[in-house]
Amino acid sequence: MSRPNLQIALDHNDLEHALADIFKVGAVVDIIEVGTILCLQEGQKAIRCIRGMFPEKKLVADTKCADAGGTVAKNVAKAGADFMTVICCATIPTMKAAKKEVEELQVELYGDWTYQQAEAWREIGIKQAIYHQSRDALLSGETWGEKDLSKVKKLIEMGFNVSVTGGLDVDTLKLFEGIDVYTFITGRGITAAPDPVQAAQNFKDEIIRIWGQ
Amino acid sequence: MSRPNLQIALDHNDLEHALADIFKVGAVVDIIEVGTILCLQEGQKAIRCIRGMFPEKKLVADTKCADAGGTVAKNVAKAGADFMTVICCATIPTMKAAKKEVEELQVELYGDWTYQQAEAWREIGIKQAIYHQSRDALLSGETWGEKDLSKVKKLIEMGFNVSVTGGLDVDTLKLFEGIDVYTFITGRGITAAPDPVQAAQNFKDEIIRIWGQ
Repeated sequence: MSRPNLQIALDHNDLEHALADIFKVGAVVDIIEVGTILCLQEGQKAIRCIRGMFPEKKLVADTKCADAGGTVAKNVAKAGADFMTVICCATIPTMKAAKKEVEELQVELYGDWTYQQAEAWREIGIKQAIYHQSRDALLSGETWGEKDLSKVKKLIEMGFNVSVTGGLDVDTLKLFEGIDVYTFITGRGITAAPDPVQAAQNFKDEIIRIWGQ
Repeated sequence: MSRPNLQIALDHNDLEHALADIFKVGAVVDIIEVGTILCLQEGQKAIRCIRGMFPEKKLVADTKCADAGGTVAKNVAKAGADFMTVICCATIPTMKAAKKEVEELQVELYGDWTYQQAEAWREIGIKQAIYHQSRDALLSGETWGEKDLSKVKKLIEMGFNVSVTGGLDVDTLKLFEGIDVYTFITGRGITAAPDPVQAAQNFKDEIIRIWGQ
């Protein structure tokens, strides 16, 4: 079992604030995500700026692409993204078209999706999936439950590298102990902390404590 | 039955080309869409520029929003969008949050969706849906068939203002005769024509010929 990555989601409304935060914590995290909100506000410039600042880091464009997969993927790859997200209800031809243009595609699991669909994603060679804890569950005060964890495990058994996100803090990481999580994604868990660098380091230390170096 | 709108989708890779096209045909069309590709490439600036050029036109931000509905909607409304798209697999709380922040929300129908879901969208007061002809069907050379048309009719019966898109040309409009289509959306049907203004006018003339002034 390898150490899960720590990914920061930059879901800022403008590039200035995103760059201020990533400038501070970029060195600590493994993967930098240009979040959907930031993509839609600032366009490809956000990807280009962060790629310029961190040429060695893995960079995700969280486009949640649903159509025109080939064009969207070509554009974000050209701007410097390694990974790109597609939404789970995108069609297989859209995913196939996107897959050709970018290093790796990540399927974002929202709403109703099925393991049958997940099999189809594996069949076309998609390696990554992102499991979101339900926003409803989060709003009603629940945390990660057995139902979520068993879905994550099943996706891992199917061969996916699974990233998890939604309401994660340092204390919730231990719920995943023994599970081969690919990446933990957090945004405000780092950026809204009084000391973002310390918050990022706390996440990383806890990951290392549980999964090893 | 009222005359369907003509909507141009600006799915350009950069603002320069989008503005060059909309400068020419903006006066002819009823609704201007800042397409997903353009949103992701240029950010909110694309919405702002087009709003500035055409203060009186209806403007759609085709964000295909899947999450963070409230923030995305607030941002595009602030930039000048009247309508915003959400993807059909977004959750009801996401759609509700988005709906509060923008004049009208449009649900984009991709992949597998059900009439049961559509009922839930109506229940939270969503008035618009966008029916895409399947890309697979288009690639295999099919045009709009009875199956598509009956889905469009059913959605209209459910109370939706239905926009249709995908492989439309002036000759396919007559397939919709007798159907109370809200809007016909085309992108390259206008922008890739040798004379885009004439192409837009031809669409409009055919709509008026079939549905009246």
